[in-house]
Amino acid sequence: MSTKSPFPFSRENLEQVLKRRFFFAPAFEIYGGVSGLYDYGPPGCAFQANIVDTWRKHFILEEDMLEVDCTMLTPHEVLKTSGHVDKFADWMCRDLKTGEIFRADHLVEEVLEARLKGDKAARGQAITEEEDEDKKKRKKKVKEIKNIKLDDEVVKEYETVLNQIDGFSGHQLGELIVKYNITNPATGGPLEPPVEFNLMFETAIGPSGQLKGFLRPETAQGQFLNFSKLLECNNEKMPFASASIGKSFRNEISPRAGLLRVREFLMAEIEHFVDPDNKNHPRFDEVKDTKLSFLPKDVQEAGSNTLVEKTIGEAVETGMVDNQTLGYFIARIFYFLLKIGVDPSRLRFRQHLSNEMAHYASDCWDAELQTSYGWIECVGCADRSAYDLSVHAKRTNEKLVVRQALPEPITVEKFEVDIDKKKFGPKFRKDAGAVEKFLTLRTECELEDLGEELKANGKIVAKVDGIESPVEIDGELVKIAKVKRTEHIREFVPNVIEPSFGIGRIIYSIFEHQFWARPEDKDRSVLSLPPLVAPTKVLVVPLSSHADLLPLVKKITSVLRKEQIPYKVDDSSASIGKRYARNDEVGTPFGITIDFDTVKDNSVTLRERDSTKQVRGSLEDIIEAVKNITYNGVSWAEGTTKLTPFETLAEEA
Amino acid sequence: MSTKSPFPFSRENLEQVLKRRFFFAPAFEIYGGVSGLYDYGPPGCAFQANIVDTWRKHFILEEDMLEVDCTMLTPHEVLKTSGHVDKFADWMCRDLKTGEIFRADHLVEEVLEARLKGDKAARGQAITEEEDEDKKKRKKKVKEIKNIKLDDEVVKEYETVLNQIDGFSGHQLGELIVKYNITNPATGGPLEPPVEFNLMFETAIGPSGQLKGFLRPETAQGQFLNFSKLLECNNEKMPFASASIGKSFRNEISPRAGLLRVREFLMAEIEHFVDPDNKNHPRFDEVKDTKLSFLPKDVQEAGSNTLVEKTIGEAVETGMVDNQTLGYFIARIFYFLLKIGVDPSRLRFRQHLSNEMAHYASDCWDAELQTSYGWIECVGCADRSAYDLSVHAKRTNEKLVVRQALPEPITVEKFEVDIDKKKFGPKFRKDAGAVEKFLTLRTECELEDLGEELKANGKIVAKVDGIESPVEIDGELVKIAKVKRTEHIREFVPNVIEPSFGIGRIIYSIFEHQFWARPEDKDRSVLSLPPLVAPTKVLVVPLSSHADLLPLVKKITSVLRKEQIPYKVDDSSASIGKRYARNDEVGTPFGITIDFDTVKDNSVTLRERDSTKQVRGSLEDIIEAVKNITYNGVSWAEGTTKLTPFETLAEEA
Repeated sequence: MSTKSPFPFSRENLEQVLKRRFFFAPAFEIYGGVSGLYDYGPPGCAFQANIVDTWRKHFILEEDMLEVDCTMLTPHEVLKTSGHVDKFADWMCRDLKTGEIFRADHLVEEVLEARLKGDKAARGQAITEEEDEDKKKRKKKVKEIKNIKLDDEVVKEYETVLNQIDGFSGHQLGELIVKYNITNPATGGPLEPPVEFNLMFETAIGPSGQLKGFLRPETAQGQFLNFSKLLECNNEKMPFASASIGKSFRNEISPRAGLLRVREFLMAEIEHFVDPDNKNHPRFDEVKDTKLSFLPKDVQEAGSNTLVEKTIGEAVETGMVDNQTLGYFIARIFYFLLKIGVDPSRLRFRQHLSNEMAHYASDCWDAELQTSYGWIECVGCADRSAYDLSVHAKRTNEKLVVRQALPEPITVEKFEVDIDKKKFGPKFRKDAGAVEKFLTLRTECELEDLGEELKANGKIVAKVDGIESPVEIDGELVKIAKVKRTEHIREFVPNVIEPSFGIGRIIYSIFEHQFWARPEDKDRSVLSLPPLVAPTKVLVVPLSSHADLLPLVKKITSVLRKEQIPYKVDDSSASIGKRYARNDEVGTPFGITIDFDTVKDNSVTLRERDSTKQVRGSLEDIIEAVKNITYNGVSWAEGTTKLTPFETLAEEA
Repeated sequence: MSTKSPFPFSRENLEQVLKRRFFFAPAFEIYGGVSGLYDYGPPGCAFQANIVDTWRKHFILEEDMLEVDCTMLTPHEVLKTSGHVDKFADWMCRDLKTGEIFRADHLVEEVLEARLKGDKAARGQAITEEEDEDKKKRKKKVKEIKNIKLDDEVVKEYETVLNQIDGFSGHQLGELIVKYNITNPATGGPLEPPVEFNLMFETAIGPSGQLKGFLRPETAQGQFLNFSKLLECNNEKMPFASASIGKSFRNEISPRAGLLRVREFLMAEIEHFVDPDNKNHPRFDEVKDTKLSFLPKDVQEAGSNTLVEKTIGEAVETGMVDNQTLGYFIARIFYFLLKIGVDPSRLRFRQHLSNEMAHYASDCWDAELQTSYGWIECVGCADRSAYDLSVHAKRTNEKLVVRQALPEPITVEKFEVDIDKKKFGPKFRKDAGAVEKFLTLRTECELEDLGEELKANGKIVAKVDGIESPVEIDGELVKIAKVKRTEHIREFVPNVIEPSFGIGRIIYSIFEHQFWARPEDKDRSVLSLPPLVAPTKVLVVPLSSHADLLPLVKKITSVLRKEQIPYKVDDSSASIGKRYARNDEVGTPFGITIDFDTVKDNSVTLRERDSTKQVRGSLEDIIEAVKNITYNGVSWAEGTTKLTPFETLAEEA
């Protein structure tokens, strides 16, 4: 419920407004649509563009990040290395009779939730409007929903399963389906056991059909692959961050929940490369007093979801958040979300559970936003360690490392390989490079083994990347020995802290956070988007269609255009009140009204959307106020001190 | 050759700078790369973002266009209707022995050009640097290039073929390959006759594998499909334009020429919907005196490429350019290209030949930019007539029309269908809607025919979309008759004028137009990007690494950050001259130098990249000048009147 309105939030009303004003719509709707694909119409597209622009300024410009724009088409080999070919998958169940396909975890979730709601109803307990709406929608396709009371124990069991639903393997989901007798909800028909379905869209690159590719599932890989070039761009200085804004793709099994689960989506991702031995952040002090709501893993593991309120400084100090850089970005994410309209009371940072996190990650926190669909993961902030750079380096034999001069040289003892290049070339010919690379890229441990093999057999036999049959390297060509060296350079693979934003999910959550109805009429909706990101900043409203007002509309719009302030004109014959109302629901923060006094003295009124307060002043002063409030973070009260309060009769409906 | 430099343009030097400074690079380079896929590094990405931002302001904001963001994934049916499934193809030839695949027209072009250059060399004629470079590259893969003199007649024939190379059918290309004995250039081996290859990337949407989709080949279709929603957003007012900026895809057979021919590219497209009976433009007068260079089709058909210089007003008046709206956009495209750095002397508008144009288009002009690869199509500006809206409306049975109140009612006589709805429902049951739609959507002509069929047979038998077997409609259910009606509403399918921008091609062309070398040293390159779109606006250069200067660097950068002016710091130990030079080649227009006077009086020097002129003033005044020159279109002379000219010794190399 919005604090501004006595009416409870209505998802139905919001969806109606978003659809009617074309914030977004199902793509290919006149062809019947394709689930999980949405088009953004003009207000949605402008809102998105403003969020992206704010993101660019808040992160890239502020932190001097290196932005890159990498291709979406990605060859198989890259995503095989990153692990996506093997692991980027969901579990699906098929109904062989009808051909329907269900995402296994969602099916279990949906059926158990439906049963619990049936139980609630049978017990005569209150059901929220959203629950009721969900149920109505579900009832259309789910036959089995009846108001049946369950055993208390069963209720508890279902709740436990639902709390852990993200953590089950395909095999476990299959067991649950059998145990709870879950069938095709529409027909009651039996389902096949879950099988894995890879979520990447596959295609062939080039005319031969031989080069398999995918649409990228995230923008991160392109940034990792360009690491060495980026480090060079940054004059070899560490730490530094790259960033990328672009579409990614996920071939969802059965998308639902509108913008929250789609097959094509805009992401904004940062890869902050940092020294693994020092994850402090030089600007951490600037944010350390930021108070945030956390849901750490130990609380979740104890079966609770009570939020822990503390400053990010305390969170890092106590070790709850792993390091300063992770903490710095968590705080920066918080400020970004507030700037673009997220309600801070419906924002929490939830830590991943150990079984939820990728095996290489050392810590991961999601910024979750509360909506009528529950708490939604909108921003991930993970410490990916050195995983990605290491696997790509290993696969390609390209070093992805940082080399830094040591403050003082150190002495180290280590195995080294000494190649007799004169003999190497003639012996291996075109393969000489590959064999040499093989030897120079071995780890300490591997070199020790190879050295022993050489000692024992007088030769090494090894499988070398890019060469078909095993290679024999004779003892005459190569020596391996432990040597003492003075080193002046430290070489390391940086770790990566990755804040990753799902723009569409953030957009939808903000709609829910900022949508309310005027106390006097539950159908008079307002979308209180912050001026900075609102699609249109000003609605220009001539009081009437009288010819005297026309040149003023032209004059004002040409000034707005010159000042690059996005505006719309509503010169329809609807009442002023109605025109304001149309303006409120599309989130336009300001209305400039032209009346007959404007003809006389060039003065106009400025109306603020949320309070419906009005002030009057010269066109120049009004535009100055709009600019300051919209772009310079000035409040309405501060921005309008020079202007005269303007009293009108209550706005007509 | 640049007018600023005595040295001829060197593509090799440019490519080296672009690569070294990571403007862009082959994608997946550490995996060996994939041809036709490129990543933009930080300066390229910032340049691209600035161009997109300028585009948005120049077109969308200035003309109040409706921006949309539609999905790239597109179902088969949509692109079948648009014609892309059948016609978006190139011809390819396979060498069955080696497995190599060639794009037929490029192969013919490449081989004939190579032979002509061999002939030129044999005749002892001069070869340009680019020709020479091309030849060197080609020589690696083309065995047959020898300096052989050709008959004068053969030379003429080759030249004619090359001039018409875009117009040949696959069959004709096959004949040319036989006639001129064109083989695999690398091996001399025989080639299969050309076959068609569709250039769309195909994929499957959803887990069943049943829904075939493609990556969009253009952003236009999403705009057409949303036409009715957009018209409503515009309060049903005509004319209006929608716009879209996003990636499109083209599975090129064998991409070459760097950024000019790629498989994934950024487009910016406008669809301006206009009344077919009135293609005048309300703002045409504002641009009518714009002088442009045209290459109209009659000149091309006469075998010439002499440009026609006239104003766009004259061009429309004489009918050379079909209508005002097309003319208006041609002029607006011109101003946009100038703003972002295109050299107007290397820009021409070339009209499509009749056989080059899509059959539905009524006129089409390309903005072509001259580069070392020849004249490159960078912006298309086509009148697509009512084609797209009509085919989609027909396929989906959704009306995509404009309805306008007529100034005075008119009387029309036309065939009308009268359905007996009471009988219709019971008779056709679930198909009733489809049958009704079938009848109401018939054209005049079709209704006349159906009326006659009804008269003759007492019934209509017809194939109705969505119903398997033919439908029989009895005379009792429907009447068709000619009736007189007074009409108050005019209904029409709008025409579409489409300016379509290939951002990557424009970017590369601007690099060529603005790249030059200082007269004193041919390796001291400058990239004269306009300040508005330059990746970085200011390089901050402390004179030395003395500790006294450090706080000033911090202070200046924090001001720049607050003012949102993109900057870089170069505090390396390189000489000032060297740091300026590194700055020049990456296109940064301004350098702010901090010296020991800054410590005393807060004054800094500002250096201009192209002229290397310097002025001195307070930090505030210098920043004011940077902002005015960069964002407000003020010239260097105007912007620095308040500042003191600052003389230094010649910049050290």
